[in-house]
Amino acid sequence: MGFVEGLKCRECGREYKVDPIYVCEFCFGPLEAVYDYKKIKKSLNRKKILQREKNLWRYKELLPIDGEPQVGLNSGFTPLVETKNLARELGVKTLYVKDDTVVHPTLSFKDRVVAVALTKAKEFGFDTVACASTGNLAHSVSAHGAKAGLKRFIFIPATLEASKITAALIYEPNLIAVDGNYDDVNRLCSEIANKYKWAFVNINIRPFYAEGSKTLGFEIVEQLGWNAPDNVVVPCASGSLLTKVWKSFKEFHEIGVIKKLETKVFAAQAQGCNPIAAALKSHTDVIRPMKPNTIAKSLAIGNPADGYYAVKVVQETGGCGEEVTDQEIIDGIKLLARTEGIFAETAGGVTVAVTKKLIENGCIGKNDTTVICVTGNGLKTQEALNGQMLKAHYIPPNMESFEEVLSNIK
Amino acid sequence: MGFVEGLKCRECGREYKVDPIYVCEFCFGPLEAVYDYKKIKKSLNRKKILQREKNLWRYKELLPIDGEPQVGLNSGFTPLVETKNLARELGVKTLYVKDDTVVHPTLSFKDRVVAVALTKAKEFGFDTVACASTGNLAHSVSAHGAKAGLKRFIFIPATLEASKITAALIYEPNLIAVDGNYDDVNRLCSEIANKYKWAFVNINIRPFYAEGSKTLGFEIVEQLGWNAPDNVVVPCASGSLLTKVWKSFKEFHEIGVIKKLETKVFAAQAQGCNPIAAALKSHTDVIRPMKPNTIAKSLAIGNPADGYYAVKVVQETGGCGEEVTDQEIIDGIKLLARTEGIFAETAGGVTVAVTKKLIENGCIGKNDTTVICVTGNGLKTQEALNGQMLKAHYIPPNMESFEEVLSNIK
Repeated sequence: MGFVEGLKCRECGREYKVDPIYVCEFCFGPLEAVYDYKKIKKSLNRKKILQREKNLWRYKELLPIDGEPQVGLNSGFTPLVETKNLARELGVKTLYVKDDTVVHPTLSFKDRVVAVALTKAKEFGFDTVACASTGNLAHSVSAHGAKAGLKRFIFIPATLEASKITAALIYEPNLIAVDGNYDDVNRLCSEIANKYKWAFVNINIRPFYAEGSKTLGFEIVEQLGWNAPDNVVVPCASGSLLTKVWKSFKEFHEIGVIKKLETKVFAAQAQGCNPIAAALKSHTDVIRPMKPNTIAKSLAIGNPADGYYAVKVVQETGGCGEEVTDQEIIDGIKLLARTEGIFAETAGGVTVAVTKKLIENGCIGKNDTTVICVTGNGLKTQEALNGQMLKAHYIPPNMESFEEVLSNIK
Repeated sequence: MGFVEGLKCRECGREYKVDPIYVCEFCFGPLEAVYDYKKIKKSLNRKKILQREKNLWRYKELLPIDGEPQVGLNSGFTPLVETKNLARELGVKTLYVKDDTVVHPTLSFKDRVVAVALTKAKEFGFDTVACASTGNLAHSVSAHGAKAGLKRFIFIPATLEASKITAALIYEPNLIAVDGNYDDVNRLCSEIANKYKWAFVNINIRPFYAEGSKTLGFEIVEQLGWNAPDNVVVPCASGSLLTKVWKSFKEFHEIGVIKKLETKVFAAQAQGCNPIAAALKSHTDVIRPMKPNTIAKSLAIGNPADGYYAVKVVQETGGCGEEVTDQEIIDGIKLLARTEGIFAETAGGVTVAVTKKLIENGCIGKNDTTVICVTGNGLKTQEALNGQMLKAHYIPPNMESFEEVLSNIK
């Protein structure tokens, strides 16, 4: 038996029992899982966590399932890499990258939310899962759904890059390529979700799905020796990940796993899709929807569902929002690769470049401990780097030609 | 201080002290690291291993370094996935995939050998590392070398796919694209290695580099609850990995970490490059060099340096060699993805397809415990799947169009 008492509307507070529902019938506010923290406090502590397998389920009491984990048993517990070279370049003392470029099996943090969503979908008795996605989520639902023996309907915009289509199709889901943009796809999916009894992970399963993101935060705290960092820089698409990382810190504090919580949370966005960062810069909590135009496609949500809540977290914790240009994103990817040997997707370029800015403008202090969230692998967004790389030296296969090149390098 | 006593020629047995050398001065046989197993037996046991971080260095006494690990501190300890769906399809009881599709940071088992090679290169005092590679090794040396602060010269055939060039270049090494095939590249590198005091990981550092592959085997044993499997299926390029997996089992047996060792070792190759499998099928240990022609490019070594030794191991353990066509490789990749949600590169398709054959022809028994080595991520060899995938369903963004598709699916 799990520790979730029910669902609760984040706007009006109305309570619901645990069901595949996501929106308040009365005020249309989003629903969120509510836990019995007193009970969890008695059941979960550092020692118990340490005895468990190193995957995201080691924090299962704080995840919204009732039985045992069923999906993603090898997902999570990615490295927290101390990035000394990067710290030196940026002029700070202590910098870490939470490295979700190597999450099992599909190399992005979406494996965390999908592991939880599909376990819950199985608990609810669904035999079919679905999602609307522009890439990482399609990849992850296709893979985990295959292993879990679930029928899968994956909806994507038809214009998606060929490599992302390959990454989803290899697992042989039903892939529906919709002639339209992501909003069109989403609209169609909502309609389908109303009619068919399927588990749409980011629609009717969303209150459970979203909780999976907390595991990123739990791991950061554990890997810092049971300390929350001074600063955490989180990329924002819908804004959900940022709110859940903060929730994870608060929950660990609530159940006594950490004693002190003074973390500042920073929102990282691309200039071409900055509704959350823009609201923060204008000192408002009103999100102005926009039409995305950025190479960071996994962050390109112009009307972020959790934007308001993300803004509130950043303001509450004393962080701020920052945005970077496409060129800065590419430079961020290259900087991380060159200094730390980690190849991030464009969203990771955003958080690295934003962190650089935050250090330069003094929002992140030189003696702080800062964690940068890098949420996906660079092999997934290679096309963004076309024409942006160093060049190889082309030579015929002989010593003289090589030494001519060498003389120019040294 | 480490546990390596010296290097020893595998042919004539002549001994050398630990140096960046790789070939016997007298008989031109390959050199190999020799350990003091009696001393290791006193220092290393299950309990000590279990207390350490989950990365490849938890077995450091059995790796050829003298000081502390310096490179690849987050590499290794990848999941051993129990693949029940695949087992069911193939008609066996117990099947595992050792899943190196998610090795940190570059998603192939090469991170294991490079972690050891670069740590040793630093111990030797080199400031420059180099390699000849057709992909995965270039990627890994570029990444680990960046983090380790080493100058890097990476030599590749100029015809390498654009995506593999991107994957290496992002870390900003000196990338030398040689107009010629892999043999031409290798020949040039040997010449350069003779002249410049650089650590060529797969030339003068090879005796140390190759030992890193043992960690794959150590992990398999530990993850099976300190048992060696009945069968292990290993992909063969140079043949080195296969010999080192077997060596790892023997070493664990030697120092008493496991009591029983009756594993059969199987060599998996592509039909288009099968010198090791062909020798085994002909019941000889004479390797006939060939010109590779297969989509499994990471296995395309026509004249394998360790082919003879790989053949000996397979024969000694009672295994056999098997080969598969390019179409079977693709079917193997798709089978693993569809059943287990794991997307392997072409070399993984080879081991899966070979395992299927070995089960069908009775070489692998239905009640055996078998481990399939999957050594790299499918995102690295996507081009091999062109035209080989299921198709997406393209629809306009409305319910009627979707339901028309749906009626054809069900």
